[in-house]
Amino acid sequence: MKKIAIIGSGNVAFHLSRALKETDYEIQMINPRSLDGLSDDFDLILIAVTDTIIEEISGKIADKLVRFNGIVTHTAGTVEMKVFAKYFDNYGVIYPLQTFNKDLEISNYRQIPVFIEGNSKETVDKIYKIISNKFENCVQYSSEQRKTLHLASVFACNFVNAMYSVSEEILNDNDIPYEYIKPLIEYTCFKAIRNNPSDIQTGPAKRGDIGVIKAHIKELADKPEILNLYQTITSFLLKKYGHE
Amino acid sequence: MKKIAIIGSGNVAFHLSRALKETDYEIQMINPRSLDGLSDDFDLILIAVTDTIIEEISGKIADKLVRFNGIVTHTAGTVEMKVFAKYFDNYGVIYPLQTFNKDLEISNYRQIPVFIEGNSKETVDKIYKIISNKFENCVQYSSEQRKTLHLASVFACNFVNAMYSVSEEILNDNDIPYEYIKPLIEYTCFKAIRNNPSDIQTGPAKRGDIGVIKAHIKELADKPEILNLYQTITSFLLKKYGHE
Repeated sequence: MKKIAIIGSGNVAFHLSRALKETDYEIQMINPRSLDGLSDDFDLILIAVTDTIIEEISGKIADKLVRFNGIVTHTAGTVEMKVFAKYFDNYGVIYPLQTFNKDLEISNYRQIPVFIEGNSKETVDKIYKIISNKFENCVQYSSEQRKTLHLASVFACNFVNAMYSVSEEILNDNDIPYEYIKPLIEYTCFKAIRNNPSDIQTGPAKRGDIGVIKAHIKELADKPEILNLYQTITSFLLKKYGHE
Repeated sequence: MKKIAIIGSGNVAFHLSRALKETDYEIQMINPRSLDGLSDDFDLILIAVTDTIIEEISGKIADKLVRFNGIVTHTAGTVEMKVFAKYFDNYGVIYPLQTFNKDLEISNYRQIPVFIEGNSKETVDKIYKIISNKFENCVQYSSEQRKTLHLASVFACNFVNAMYSVSEEILNDNDIPYEYIKPLIEYTCFKAIRNNPSDIQTGPAKRGDIGVIKAHIKELADKPEILNLYQTITSFLLKKYGHE
């Protein structure tokens, strides 16, 4: 039986173990602290831990394994593949571009794009063979391209969610249900999936409507942190659309 | 036959005319410049023009009508109802909370929340009777609440789209297809609809991962406008989640 070890107990480890179920490979979850159960007979080791401890865990794995002949990979957006160079012969990266949360279901793993890298053509081919079985968009990208993807995803996901939560806070503080804004959130996303976002921008900053902007600034007078966000993003848009 | 006049030729006018089709009312589109076709026999006049010219258009309408007995409304988030006080007897606001674009289909008008206001109970009741026929969530809200909704929608829609377009720009500049980030955009929205956004924040700023943040700042060195956005939103999140 071919075997994959997933090292980690976080959101990515959890969802990768689910996504890779029912391939030709047996999946084994390994605790990153103890590494109990890890042995030379794994074909693929997937390190799904916080970026900052990938190097440390790699060292421990290298110490533990004796005649390991498989591939070691991590799943991080911003950690370069070469983190493994001094520890292993065959190594690479398997980076799924999605936001994972253990408590939240993902209905369709197949459509998550996965970016892979390997230290040789053979390694890339082996990783591809395993991953493409479960993911439709499996693309070979460099560490540099992966970093760019990660940065873009901070805007498209983390910062987008930050905007949602500011919206939620403004509504909550005025006893208006967050429910009411959900159709707008959904349609804004729907539009951006079917168009280029820069072509469909709307709002007072896009129009250069200084009157409305001034009214908003006044309304945010007692929320300096949110006001600062509002002013920075509004200035960005005013400039982008030729009003400044 | 009962009649509704929609004054305007923009995105809101276009979509409201579609949304209100097939009620007991005949819809007539009126050009805001000429006001051709406008007469005393309308039951409801809907002014769907840019915020800044609502007052001017109101004056022209008042000049043109002689024995008008219907209701005059506008559709703006930030314009107070009292803009109509000196021109008409019966007036109000019909504010649909959605982003409209003529070129883009809306598949389900019914679920768009509509916030109404009127200068008397009778006016509110009349507006409600017409609008609730086509919109499931028809809620009576004050001008003040409407302003709050509009501000919240700037974050949830306009600023969210700004984040999407920054993401698109970063990818385009590095020859990475925007396609790849779409599943992330969709799932980020999906999560925010089913949870409180502030409970499901992810990313380096949420985790306080200064190493990744520094790498991103370095990567944005040649894009000062985007870097400024990145730093402002990251500081906001670092503070919000207790890292600063």
